[in-house]
Amino acid sequence: MRKVFRDVVTIDESRKLLFTHFKPERKTEVVPLHLATGRVLARDVYALTDVPPFDRATMDGYAVRAEDTFDAEEDNPVTLKVLGEVEAGKKPEVEVERGKAVEIATGAMVPKGANAVVMVEYTRRRGDEIDVFRPVSPGENIMYAGSDVMAGELIAREGTKLTHREIGLMAACGISEVEVYRKPRVAVISTGNELVRPGEKLEEGKIYDVNSYSIAAAVEENGGEAIIIGIARDNEEEMRSTIAKALKEADFVITSGSTSAGAGDVMYRILDDFNPGVIVHGIAIKPGKPAVIALSDSKPIFGLPGYPTSAMTVFEVIVAPIIREMAGITEKEGAKIRARLALKVFSAEGRREFLPVNVVEGCEGFSAYPVSGSYSGAVTAFAFTDGFVEIPESVVMLEEGEEVEVRLFSKLRPADLMIIGSHCIGVDILLSLLRKRKPYMSKVINVGSTGGILAVKRGEADVAGTHLLDESGVYNEPIIRKYGVKNAVLVKGYLREQGLIVAKGNPKTIAGFEDLLREDVTFINRNRGSGTRILTDMYLREIAERKEVSFQELTASIKGYNIEAKTHTSVAVAIASGKADVGVGIKSVASQYGLHFIPLRSEEYDFLIRKDRMEKPAVKDFLECLTSEEFAEKLEKVEGLRVYERTGEVISL
Amino acid sequence: MRKVFRDVVTIDESRKLLFTHFKPERKTEVVPLHLATGRVLARDVYALTDVPPFDRATMDGYAVRAEDTFDAEEDNPVTLKVLGEVEAGKKPEVEVERGKAVEIATGAMVPKGANAVVMVEYTRRRGDEIDVFRPVSPGENIMYAGSDVMAGELIAREGTKLTHREIGLMAACGISEVEVYRKPRVAVISTGNELVRPGEKLEEGKIYDVNSYSIAAAVEENGGEAIIIGIARDNEEEMRSTIAKALKEADFVITSGSTSAGAGDVMYRILDDFNPGVIVHGIAIKPGKPAVIALSDSKPIFGLPGYPTSAMTVFEVIVAPIIREMAGITEKEGAKIRARLALKVFSAEGRREFLPVNVVEGCEGFSAYPVSGSYSGAVTAFAFTDGFVEIPESVVMLEEGEEVEVRLFSKLRPADLMIIGSHCIGVDILLSLLRKRKPYMSKVINVGSTGGILAVKRGEADVAGTHLLDESGVYNEPIIRKYGVKNAVLVKGYLREQGLIVAKGNPKTIAGFEDLLREDVTFINRNRGSGTRILTDMYLREIAERKEVSFQELTASIKGYNIEAKTHTSVAVAIASGKADVGVGIKSVASQYGLHFIPLRSEEYDFLIRKDRMEKPAVKDFLECLTSEEFAEKLEKVEGLRVYERTGEVISL
Repeated sequence: MRKVFRDVVTIDESRKLLFTHFKPERKTEVVPLHLATGRVLARDVYALTDVPPFDRATMDGYAVRAEDTFDAEEDNPVTLKVLGEVEAGKKPEVEVERGKAVEIATGAMVPKGANAVVMVEYTRRRGDEIDVFRPVSPGENIMYAGSDVMAGELIAREGTKLTHREIGLMAACGISEVEVYRKPRVAVISTGNELVRPGEKLEEGKIYDVNSYSIAAAVEENGGEAIIIGIARDNEEEMRSTIAKALKEADFVITSGSTSAGAGDVMYRILDDFNPGVIVHGIAIKPGKPAVIALSDSKPIFGLPGYPTSAMTVFEVIVAPIIREMAGITEKEGAKIRARLALKVFSAEGRREFLPVNVVEGCEGFSAYPVSGSYSGAVTAFAFTDGFVEIPESVVMLEEGEEVEVRLFSKLRPADLMIIGSHCIGVDILLSLLRKRKPYMSKVINVGSTGGILAVKRGEADVAGTHLLDESGVYNEPIIRKYGVKNAVLVKGYLREQGLIVAKGNPKTIAGFEDLLREDVTFINRNRGSGTRILTDMYLREIAERKEVSFQELTASIKGYNIEAKTHTSVAVAIASGKADVGVGIKSVASQYGLHFIPLRSEEYDFLIRKDRMEKPAVKDFLECLTSEEFAEKLEKVEGLRVYERTGEVISL
Repeated sequence: MRKVFRDVVTIDESRKLLFTHFKPERKTEVVPLHLATGRVLARDVYALTDVPPFDRATMDGYAVRAEDTFDAEEDNPVTLKVLGEVEAGKKPEVEVERGKAVEIATGAMVPKGANAVVMVEYTRRRGDEIDVFRPVSPGENIMYAGSDVMAGELIAREGTKLTHREIGLMAACGISEVEVYRKPRVAVISTGNELVRPGEKLEEGKIYDVNSYSIAAAVEENGGEAIIIGIARDNEEEMRSTIAKALKEADFVITSGSTSAGAGDVMYRILDDFNPGVIVHGIAIKPGKPAVIALSDSKPIFGLPGYPTSAMTVFEVIVAPIIREMAGITEKEGAKIRARLALKVFSAEGRREFLPVNVVEGCEGFSAYPVSGSYSGAVTAFAFTDGFVEIPESVVMLEEGEEVEVRLFSKLRPADLMIIGSHCIGVDILLSLLRKRKPYMSKVINVGSTGGILAVKRGEADVAGTHLLDESGVYNEPIIRKYGVKNAVLVKGYLREQGLIVAKGNPKTIAGFEDLLREDVTFINRNRGSGTRILTDMYLREIAERKEVSFQELTASIKGYNIEAKTHTSVAVAIASGKADVGVGIKSVASQYGLHFIPLRSEEYDFLIRKDRMEKPAVKDFLECLTSEEFAEKLEKVEGLRVYERTGEVISL
């Protein structure tokens, strides 16, 4: 019998259950001052001494009794007898009496009897006498003991994250070590027979361990100390003893994987063997539902799901606040901004959803682009996005244009160059050249050609990469006009060779689209809306016209027409693995997988650029890179990509 | 002959001079992925493999040919033969043919022949057969190879500061180590015979070394690695060889101290001995003018002034950008905000001034409170302020209310509780109790009672601590009314015993203010505007009336009336050191210095609170602390402070 989730609890209930058994406790440690940068103070720190510890000269000159100088004038100086000299760091040996002065250096202790310092510039030395040309008032050029910091004064408060400012102040007060919160020690374990350590050889069916590294890094970002235990195999006894060992050296343990009902709910059984065992089994959160929380004595064990995005969502929502609490960090995590949703979104009722989004700033504020698809399996969902939108349990749909709150993963800084549109390896090459010129921060969001055009129209993107073929056979210009984009220009980019991809040696002797109609040929299609799909359908429509059948009739007779791969690579993989015989894609991917390529046409990959951004330095440099010799050379090295005579041509729309 | 500054150059000129001799160079190093958090990527990183590396099941269930399920219905299932099982991490041994299915686990590789996965929930197993109750479409519950990340895809760009997000993504692509920018190694040396290491005993005339610690911490905050060399004594040979040794292990060297003309300009001479030697001798910056920049071969040596605030200003303006450049950090330092100056400020013509300010948010935006006085000697100028205002070389005055730009030292977060006013140790006790209740962020700016009242009036402070005695003999209320504060209430605080402070044993047998008129008695006064000064003058005015002389006449006959100490401690120190015989101050300070205390009266230290902040949680908790048992007990332990029957009483204004 497969075990399914029972007793799924809300996020708040899971917290309540956890905190009835476990109180996050702050431990402290003493560190030397010079290692305390970035640490969090565990107690209020008071000054041990006055700063300055004595009345201190703030200028080079002569310590005097101010009263003696009251009659001094530029042309009628007062003459005082110099008794000696005080250097910085020395205790004065003399006392200043009426009519006397002592030479004094900046920072030196003002001798007894003196109540002011005359700057050297206003004196003239003659042997053991000086002429003073200006009067000083009592206290002038003296910094009194304790006037900066008073002994006993509170100089840094518990909970302060120490910077050079507090550290300097504590040094001034003679403090050489400080009590800070000890970073909570968190052991991180990944589970699963399919996991391989990055850097090692990947056998078929295996994947690299992501969670050990991303969770450990996130533990550290939240003020903890991560102990990477490594990968535990799907062997209950081994997993149990690994966790038990980890509990000994850590304040708590995070595992990931082996939580789903299908995997036999292994982690639940293992964690329930500890005492008191599992307290939460399933949380109403999306992604991340199968999470388990258990306790061994008073130490928690968090069993996160194996999917990286699910694991990280549960980590951020449930685990991170506990680490921060134990580390004494009171700052709120991540800033929040308000944005408008760029696309409609559906959410699951009864689960709180954390939807990864990209945020871009347009003329009318921020827009949030949700990351599409079943993203919990995708490692890019977190890595390439700016933050997430929290969708409450009761909400099942958010409309396009609806205002939402985005919790940012880090400080959102406006990119110097924002590119939204179709992805191409040529854009990556352009951006690497651009960065060589200046350290621009570019941001690329791949939403396809159509999405890019709309983003430029709305002012969210500076540049959109687009390769949309019109029925007239012209690339980009006609379709952009259809979308009514007027505030932009089209800059011609480069050529990308599209063709039919077939197995090595072309065993089924495919020559063109007509062969897709053959009984013995299986096709793999691309997703609707992609430039490649539009190209495919254009070829098929021609054939339908020629054969005088409807387009629907024609495509119904193509085996695999309804199988939609999302990327060029997926097409190549399907053909390489023998699942399909033919697909449409770009040449570079075909050769990467050792497949045969039958050229169809060169498509024009162009850049739509907002007019009001043409003068932006990053945009100007981007266009210079596009027409550079270096770009031409680099592009040539990628099979099927090349610049041509129109590269860089600007078309007004 | 003393050497004075020659050839003082502007900040921009100093940079130009430096960069004609020195090019900040970025070095790189390779670190394992799990140690890369927070480091800056030195080159673009491309995916080595597809993610996922194969077509992967996203659900537990059965791998099937979608076509076989098209007729499946809830009450008319399709039956398929189960050929076997694929676990995650294993290579499938079977191929799925028409009418067949293979049991598959989440994450496992989809076997050949299959093009969809039916979720286990929609099947029923019967021996080696399953009934399928719902159709699946091609591709359903499959994540195609490379659909997350394509091999060869750019996954992280040069210049990225690595977080858990990029680290997880790189792990997923099998990357086990990354090339990052090596942190520039910066040697830090303090110079001066007066310096003592924090933690060691402070002899008379000595002060603690601040700059080694604050500069090292600031080096690290800017992405460098600090090497603290320690204190070099004022011995030219020793200093030269210490610097020469430091240059061998560091990318560059920072010294502080020994730069002023008065100290014989030691550092200039030492640094000019290197080859090519000094290139900048004096910078038009305030504070920080005596800074020296030299080169030894191609390595710079920055000779910063000894005063902590001067040293840190030159560090921030000249050195920090170089460290950031070498560390590959392209983020701009510190945020900037616009604020109105709360006080008029004078600045030196011809020098660019960096004026430390406190920033508070009021009803009409931000106000910037300049830190007054000759702050370059004060360690608190940087530590207790929020940022600085850059005043150009040509500006000599900024008006109160003028809009300025403040460069923040760190993220400015609105404090939960903002207290501006007179400083008292009782407030420190209240805040430590408050923090025990909740991790509130409080901010305290000590500007004296009058400044506090005005800050509450303008909405910049929630609470002001005030102890102002009116001529009527009533504390606070009448004076606050005079200032026309109507949007606030006065909450009675506690009593603070003021009295005459005299030497131990009261050798001059002082009994009261009348004794100040004696020939053999020297008084030390407090600064105008302080509550203590107002109290002093009130007593003296009574005596003048009684003696029927003018107030001016009376005070002219008091020796030391014109010497103004700024704090209670300065008064105590003056008496302890024998510079004065008597002063006015609070009891706790007198006993701290072992002095004799003659009580005068208990002053009422009260809190002025804006009405619209009375419901703020931090204010409510603050008032609860004020009337708590614990506060009463803690206050009692400080000599001269105590709660009384009016503590907590609220007076409408």
